[in-house]
Amino acid sequence: MASRDEAAALDAADELRAFHDRFVVAGDGLIYLDGNSLGRLPRDTATRLTEVVQNQWGERLIRAWGEGWMELPGTLGDRLGSELLGAAPGQVVIADSTTVCFYKLAAAALSARPGRTQIITDVDNFPTDRYVLESLAAERGLEILWVRADPHAGPEPSHVAELLSDKTALVTFSHINYRSAFILDVRAITELAHDHGALALWDLSHSAGAIPVALDADGVDLAVGCTYKYLNGGPGAPAYLYVRAEHQGALRQPIWGWLGRQDPFEMAPGYMPGEGISAMLSGTPPVLALTAVAAGLDLVVEAGIEAIRHKSIGLTEYAIALIDDWLVPLGCSVGSPRAASRRGSHVALVHPEARTLSQRLIDDGVIPDFRTPDVIRLGLSPLTTRFVDVYDALDRLRRMLG
Amino acid sequence: MASRDEAAALDAADELRAFHDRFVVAGDGLIYLDGNSLGRLPRDTATRLTEVVQNQWGERLIRAWGEGWMELPGTLGDRLGSELLGAAPGQVVIADSTTVCFYKLAAAALSARPGRTQIITDVDNFPTDRYVLESLAAERGLEILWVRADPHAGPEPSHVAELLSDKTALVTFSHINYRSAFILDVRAITELAHDHGALALWDLSHSAGAIPVALDADGVDLAVGCTYKYLNGGPGAPAYLYVRAEHQGALRQPIWGWLGRQDPFEMAPGYMPGEGISAMLSGTPPVLALTAVAAGLDLVVEAGIEAIRHKSIGLTEYAIALIDDWLVPLGCSVGSPRAASRRGSHVALVHPEARTLSQRLIDDGVIPDFRTPDVIRLGLSPLTTRFVDVYDALDRLRRMLG
Repeated sequence: MASRDEAAALDAADELRAFHDRFVVAGDGLIYLDGNSLGRLPRDTATRLTEVVQNQWGERLIRAWGEGWMELPGTLGDRLGSELLGAAPGQVVIADSTTVCFYKLAAAALSARPGRTQIITDVDNFPTDRYVLESLAAERGLEILWVRADPHAGPEPSHVAELLSDKTALVTFSHINYRSAFILDVRAITELAHDHGALALWDLSHSAGAIPVALDADGVDLAVGCTYKYLNGGPGAPAYLYVRAEHQGALRQPIWGWLGRQDPFEMAPGYMPGEGISAMLSGTPPVLALTAVAAGLDLVVEAGIEAIRHKSIGLTEYAIALIDDWLVPLGCSVGSPRAASRRGSHVALVHPEARTLSQRLIDDGVIPDFRTPDVIRLGLSPLTTRFVDVYDALDRLRRMLG
Repeated sequence: MASRDEAAALDAADELRAFHDRFVVAGDGLIYLDGNSLGRLPRDTATRLTEVVQNQWGERLIRAWGEGWMELPGTLGDRLGSELLGAAPGQVVIADSTTVCFYKLAAAALSARPGRTQIITDVDNFPTDRYVLESLAAERGLEILWVRADPHAGPEPSHVAELLSDKTALVTFSHINYRSAFILDVRAITELAHDHGALALWDLSHSAGAIPVALDADGVDLAVGCTYKYLNGGPGAPAYLYVRAEHQGALRQPIWGWLGRQDPFEMAPGYMPGEGISAMLSGTPPVLALTAVAAGLDLVVEAGIEAIRHKSIGLTEYAIALIDDWLVPLGCSVGSPRAASRRGSHVALVHPEARTLSQRLIDDGVIPDFRTPDVIRLGLSPLTTRFVDVYDALDRLRRMLG
């Protein structure tokens, strides 16, 4: 039978255990299993923000634009890309919201495949991605082909293969499903898309900082993702986008802003896209928000993505074992893949009363996330979640249901 | 003859003089005349950021979304709208960059006038606005009609009247020209647009926080603007957009994100625009950046826009008097309107060597902005610029040219 001592022993053996104290821990004994919605606050963030605010904005004022600010979208993007996304420099920038980044890249991809009339995605893709695709499809008279996979898993390459044809312009999925944690096969689906002349756009919001990503090696064309989940960049932190180097000359995003133009400060007539990935920018870099992103990113880079993935698997395996042991007899089931190789860093716990139970857990000091219609989502962010947190949370749920 | 004592006397009589010390003053005796590019740092900002970071993000985590974060774009937008823009509540939100906001509203306006094929703007409009219009025109097969007004002034209603017809979909200008400081006649140009069935979209980046704006009373359809100039919201701070209440049901912006949908957390299939102004949102609100915006906005609201405008006119009149007295004999001219009623809060000083002179001023501890081809732009942000700053800066330029 599982014991809290066993959980404590797992924590003692955890090579990343010291990272727990690099984050602010809420003072009320809270058990936080929602780091995949909003990552915890790094202890350094407030200090680094104050430093940038006082020493750069306060003292240097506009001169700071020439002292690193203007390059922040690319310098931070390169760090994120090379350390966590398997992307060589010059292909990632941090800017805008995930929604805006996804809109830019989806629009660019569709424009690069004129005459093709279909987009492939899945009904369980994250809502904002689905809505953006609906907008673009409506405006351009395109059709969306919806993969309807098992909602407790996700699309397999075979689902995509059935829908692909020479009408397909764009294939786009989340790398890891936001509800089930199912990991899609990026390389196989991208290859299938390419076999049919389509482009592949991946949303990495639930993977960056939790599992290794290999954009260059997997042949990915385009990707976006958010920085406020496993990257701990703060509420509503700016997003990132990746455009494969070989596409950068040909793909044009639709929001032609001054920061995406050649020589922006010449303020000259006529838009001409800037060199390389800079053409994907639109407005002025959000310096304060980027400062918080840097603080979160640094911790993930320091821990190393292989070690993070190792702990992530340990946490989700442990959660599933407790669920099987304690909660399945009480009417719960596991709504995430049982094979660790197909599962991200959260576990979907399925129960018909999931909505009510999530609220009762919150009232009891345990924060999961409810996801419609029947999922209690347990986000196990490797740098901030301990095995005893998993034990205590599921123990409370067991008592609640018992 | 002008004297520094006279400037000091003007400062002593300034009813807003106490606001100078509510901002951080760079420690090196810097004279900063670029508050219309990046406003100075309010003394409160770092403290308020730390408080939100530590007490809200750190302690409340995702619970903070239900404790005010989610409503920030609207609550701050309403405060900005009602205090500074003449907009009743429910018509302004703060979100995205100015470029993205402008893209959303210009696209929405063009979609609302199907069959009309022309956009009217001016060759001296701010670059990002021009580039976005070029993108939309290229994608939709529309034509841009460019007003070519005096570059040291700006478009008059008569220029617009000459180009308007039943082909016009959209008329869009900056309320105050970023180079000349010329104030356009919002009400007259908007009425002309309406007379021809077109919509009017105004960029308020150089007016909000510097002069009163009357969006509701002037009949304006749509407006955008940035918060990092006279509103002192910080480098790359998020922008705002205004959609007149009566248009909110009919106008649809193209970036359909989850935060613009009805009941976003239901994550349901199919985009349905949210109620009212919320349909203009796309991604997750940038909470940290919005916190800095709130700190800057509060100071402008506390000072009051009428008092700010009064001081702004005093500063620009004083600068022009010194230019006439000292610098016109040395080869400079005034590139801004001489009538205070037509001039915003900066003064364009024209000189053929403006680029070199701007750099020499910076090296000498005075920060203006260079604007192509021949303008030294003196930004006189009323809350942070003193009359002695104007005196000292122009005195140094006089010695440089003398």
